Amino acid sequence: MRMIKMILDVDTGIDDALAIAYAIASPEIELLGITVTYGNTPIDNAFQNTCELLERIHTQIPVYKGAEKPISRSAHFSSVFHGTDGLGETLGKADGVDHISADAVDFIIEQVNKYGPNLTIVTTGPVTNLAQAIMKDPSIITRVGSVVTMGGAVTTPGNVNKFAEANIFIDPEAADMVLRSELPITLVGLDVTRKTLLTQKDMQRWRSMETGLSTLFADFTEYYLNVYQKYYPFLGGCALHDPLAVAVAKDPSLVRTIPMFLKVDLEQDALGRTAEDLQRASLSGPNTFVSVQVDSERFMNDFYNRLDLVLKGSE
Amino acid sequence: MRMIKMILDVDTGIDDALAIAYAIASPEIELLGITVTYGNTPIDNAFQNTCELLERIHTQIPVYKGAEKPISRSAHFSSVFHGTDGLGETLGKADGVDHISADAVDFIIEQVNKYGPNLTIVTTGPVTNLAQAIMKDPSIITRVGSVVTMGGAVTTPGNVNKFAEANIFIDPEAADMVLRSELPITLVGLDVTRKTLLTQKDMQRWRSMETGLSTLFADFTEYYLNVYQKYYPFLGGCALHDPLAVAVAKDPSLVRTIPMFLKVDLEQDALGRTAEDLQRASLSGPNTFVSVQVDSERFMNDFYNRLDLVLKGSE
Repeated sequence: MRMIKMILDVDTGIDDALAIAYAIASPEIELLGITVTYGNTPIDNAFQNTCELLERIHTQIPVYKGAEKPISRSAHFSSVFHGTDGLGETLGKADGVDHISADAVDFIIEQVNKYGPNLTIVTTGPVTNLAQAIMKDPSIITRVGSVVTMGGAVTTPGNVNKFAEANIFIDPEAADMVLRSELPITLVGLDVTRKTLLTQKDMQRWRSMETGLSTLFADFTEYYLNVYQKYYPFLGGCALHDPLAVAVAKDPSLVRTIPMFLKVDLEQDALGRTAEDLQRASLSGPNTFVSVQVDSERFMNDFYNRLDLVLKGSE
Repeated sequence: MRMIKMILDVDTGIDDALAIAYAIASPEIELLGITVTYGNTPIDNAFQNTCELLERIHTQIPVYKGAEKPISRSAHFSSVFHGTDGLGETLGKADGVDHISADAVDFIIEQVNKYGPNLTIVTTGPVTNLAQAIMKDPSIITRVGSVVTMGGAVTTPGNVNKFAEANIFIDPEAADMVLRSELPITLVGLDVTRKTLLTQKDMQRWRSMETGLSTLFADFTEYYLNVYQKYYPFLGGCALHDPLAVAVAKDPSLVRTIPMFLKVDLEQDALGRTAEDLQRASLSGPNTFVSVQVDSERFMNDFYNRLDLVLKGSE
């Protein structure tokens, strides 16, 4: 089995929690560390949620705090979808989190230095940490193995508004910098993630396992399903955005991609829109592979099988 | 050789002229008729240009006049790109064109009735004629073989503004009706057409042939190149939008497509934008195949080879 050395950069976040559990349960992934940022919720919540989750899964993986706001804007959060605590009002807001130094950026640079082409970075929140890392050490751009970024909406409407997806919208300058760098990026955006839907039935199956962990997962997933039902009743479920990014890092053949030069619209009338950058060219070709189709069934089978291992084994 | 029975629905227009010549020079295409509409230029110009072109190519193909304005808006024209006469100030504005009855819509319906699944309709202008045809006889939707539509900008900025491509923008209600029907459409939009570029060198090769037709083609193509140079200096050429639609009708393998439910944005803030229609579903799957990658080299080789036959043989 090919082992994938991975950094997960998260803003935990309901679907981030699912992505973390999925990555941990995937034997082909060696999770070197988790870097945390703000986005779905303020960073203190995201950090607490991540640590609490790892503790409940009985897993020791280093967690690093990163950016708490965009590189050139003030922060705002997706609390409508993720609750005030980031996990659907299950764990409660962060309280008395130890102040750990913001070392996510250094950790990313250090791991690229160590593993180079063998390192995969998966981002499931705003890409502020990654943007800060390439500003601090631009040489990582050509040395990292690959980046899989959950973000963007290239062919499909956004989820913040009709133009923009939330991870890109929250820190559009960081996203533009990352996408217009030469980083080798696979973009896993709403174009494909909204085709991977967890349903009430899937959540109820977790609830019926009646382990502490399965109950927690059923609780926050139910919260997420209810919000999706309110905003996207026609979808019939909630999107597995972040787990799909982990899956694509494991198995790129799950998605069909098109190579593109992308940019982020920084103008107010379509802030955060991801579209082709017409003026860019490169001898080595486009740096971003945009996912446009997904084998949802194959992904979801793997996802539920892996999650079952985690959720059943927690008592 | 598989013969393709084709109707070309055009708004001639510089690249429409190239598409017409290309279709005529392609032995695998049986051009049943050309239906004309407004768009690049008012319909009288488009009609005159089409007839004059056929006469100069010594080809007799029936030409039918269609819609002269959008289904629910007033008309406007792309004269900046195509000149006041639609052909780069070569033929002059239409003057004393015979008033022929607007029978394009009836011709389309009649040919679907006659040839059904063996008929391909290629549209290179606003799809007003096609929308009127499906309003007049909705049964053609499930009976026509295929529709190849040059229009839209799904992953890439538009050419009217950053949201919209001109053919869609000019009659967005018609385009929305057509795309949201069950018509089997292959969309050939700016996503791919802006990857097929005719250069100064290609135009000069035509000019050096020194036939009447090659001089005419060089003249209007030079006009087009100059406008492209002004608005898109970074492209290094002018896009072969309409010829690519003809090519895809001949050989679908020239493009990679993704199946999608598309819609046209009819709101003022992004009028004419083509994006995924999230709320639509169908047991038979999406009706539109959106071209996202193109084998430009293979297309252009065929295009220049075919055009050479027409342009050299005209004296």
